[in-house]
Amino acid sequence: MEKRLYNFAAGPSAIPEEVLKRAQAEMLCYPGAGCGVMEMSHRSAAFGRIRDGAEESLRRLMDIPDDYAVLFLQGGASMQFSMVPMNLAARGQKTAYIVSGHFAKKAFEEAGRWGEAVCAASSEGDGFSFIPEPGPGAVPPDAAYLHITGNNTIFGTCFSELPDTGGVPLAADWSSAILGRRIDVRRHALIYAGAQKNLGPAGLTLVIVRKDAVRQDIDPVVPTMLRYAPQIKADSMYNTPPCWSIYMAGLMFEWVEAQGGVAEMERRNLEKAALLYGTIDSSKLFENRVPARDRSVTNVVFTLPTAELTEKFAAACAEAGIINIKGHRLTGGFRASIYNGVGLEAVRALAGVMERFEKEEGR
Amino acid sequence: MEKRLYNFAAGPSAIPEEVLKRAQAEMLCYPGAGCGVMEMSHRSAAFGRIRDGAEESLRRLMDIPDDYAVLFLQGGASMQFSMVPMNLAARGQKTAYIVSGHFAKKAFEEAGRWGEAVCAASSEGDGFSFIPEPGPGAVPPDAAYLHITGNNTIFGTCFSELPDTGGVPLAADWSSAILGRRIDVRRHALIYAGAQKNLGPAGLTLVIVRKDAVRQDIDPVVPTMLRYAPQIKADSMYNTPPCWSIYMAGLMFEWVEAQGGVAEMERRNLEKAALLYGTIDSSKLFENRVPARDRSVTNVVFTLPTAELTEKFAAACAEAGIINIKGHRLTGGFRASIYNGVGLEAVRALAGVMERFEKEEGR
Repeated sequence: MEKRLYNFAAGPSAIPEEVLKRAQAEMLCYPGAGCGVMEMSHRSAAFGRIRDGAEESLRRLMDIPDDYAVLFLQGGASMQFSMVPMNLAARGQKTAYIVSGHFAKKAFEEAGRWGEAVCAASSEGDGFSFIPEPGPGAVPPDAAYLHITGNNTIFGTCFSELPDTGGVPLAADWSSAILGRRIDVRRHALIYAGAQKNLGPAGLTLVIVRKDAVRQDIDPVVPTMLRYAPQIKADSMYNTPPCWSIYMAGLMFEWVEAQGGVAEMERRNLEKAALLYGTIDSSKLFENRVPARDRSVTNVVFTLPTAELTEKFAAACAEAGIINIKGHRLTGGFRASIYNGVGLEAVRALAGVMERFEKEEGR
Repeated sequence: MEKRLYNFAAGPSAIPEEVLKRAQAEMLCYPGAGCGVMEMSHRSAAFGRIRDGAEESLRRLMDIPDDYAVLFLQGGASMQFSMVPMNLAARGQKTAYIVSGHFAKKAFEEAGRWGEAVCAASSEGDGFSFIPEPGPGAVPPDAAYLHITGNNTIFGTCFSELPDTGGVPLAADWSSAILGRRIDVRRHALIYAGAQKNLGPAGLTLVIVRKDAVRQDIDPVVPTMLRYAPQIKADSMYNTPPCWSIYMAGLMFEWVEAQGGVAEMERRNLEKAALLYGTIDSSKLFENRVPARDRSVTNVVFTLPTAELTEKFAAACAEAGIINIKGHRLTGGFRASIYNGVGLEAVRALAGVMERFEKEEGR
């Protein structure tokens, strides 16, 4: 087999080798099924066990109460940008958004198609370089919810504390932090996450929603496929679900449980992040301008002072077998995404390259 | 490895062993990428080649003209039930549907959320046992399109010829027949298909649409994710696509090309279907009531006269290593789905069990 490189992709992103090997071993024949997971009816007993097992594992990991539904959907976080307002707000109703990044802004814009989306706080004027806080009265008390993007993958920022919603229900996109840090489900009306960061492959969207927050009387124009209620009723099988991605997510959940759960993932991620932020902060070359409190634990962004050094460092990374380290096209520079699937050894390798680069170029 | 059984699942369904083995071999390391397909950025060069390769292969296989876009989307055919009217018809505009089965009816109902959906023909009164034809004037000339479900998986019927649309554009759900028989793309404004039958795993929806049929001025309430135009512009990467499913579909396309293309698939499928229909028609026990002209080449349904015989035959199938042969809950009886991934040897095994059963029970 070719060598696996140190993969810092922002999503889709690294999956633990043990998980991939398990999927590989079961590819032609899932135990007892007589066929692979991609070939089995989603209504079969074998797939039912895969789906139920994934949900049960996630409920244990996140301590999800019984009055919350767990949905395995399609379309990514971008589809939730529309489904959240359509299912939690009446047509035309106020909703509130904290605009802390590129995707937070997209979520805000899509909500404007459905109702009166209010921007409760924004850091757009400062290039999304920090997490903005709503001022007093900025969240309308009659808003259906306040929406946050818990972690901003592109800008390397995250909410270290949940914002004060002033009693309005909280809806959060936790795509790039879910299972990577402890999240108190009970403080949310709804959590959603694209799977391709901490939960497995692309093509699966996780929704955790308090059942009584889901509106039943939705405008007829909303497609059945965009309604939570029929999916809750059908255990996410209103139509054929993304079976393979659910299976892979289940393997990831099992792996996280075996490692010691979310608290252990958080400990490891803090350790990995501390190693990189420490390297950056003690450097004269590498820079990260995010206020300490708002720094993402899963996406560490940094820049170098010149285009020449940027190019040189990219080459040093390539040389060391480090891939997918380039920053997002909106920001430039570098981004190390260090989700659960990225081991400490990969982060050490990157920190090592940074230190050597500093020594050689920082004179 | 455990034994792979004869899998007649209606979708998700059997995938050729060669295809699965290729995916298995590349799972931890896609050649030259340093990581597996599930772990690579969808914006990476490696994934770009996978996506483009899949599209090019499909264009060759189906002879898709340049003025048609090929989209790799999520949500299944059920999501297209809404996206088709939202993108091809003005809000409130007439659309026409041939209601030939369970999913055709669902498509018709979802279209009613958007505009005035007209039922141009229906076989619902006869339990969807045949393909209905629109009478003169049944398709309104001002309809945005006429929609058909090309193959009705549950009822084992298919359109052997495309209907006369009276000049109205044709939109077709070809989920359970695409790449299994020759389909003239040029006679359609739009074709869509869930992947989990002939194209690979669930979680991918293929859309082939004539670009000038796509409306640009869509009601603002329609989510960006439900619009074809941004996906056409972004080569299906408006957001993270279902990367693994696209990769698997690409391997399936490559496999079909290596076998000799769609014409060869059609030849094999006709041979497999003829074997089963021949066995049924020469039997005193097994019955299929679909008019010969409307019989599906991919889903062969049949019943036995008593509950006792039904149970006994199910046991005989299980004994012979035949799985997923039970009919849909709406119809009962049996259904052998014989998509491209189901080999002649599996169909021979089933025909053999049927013949032995006939001899033993049909005295």
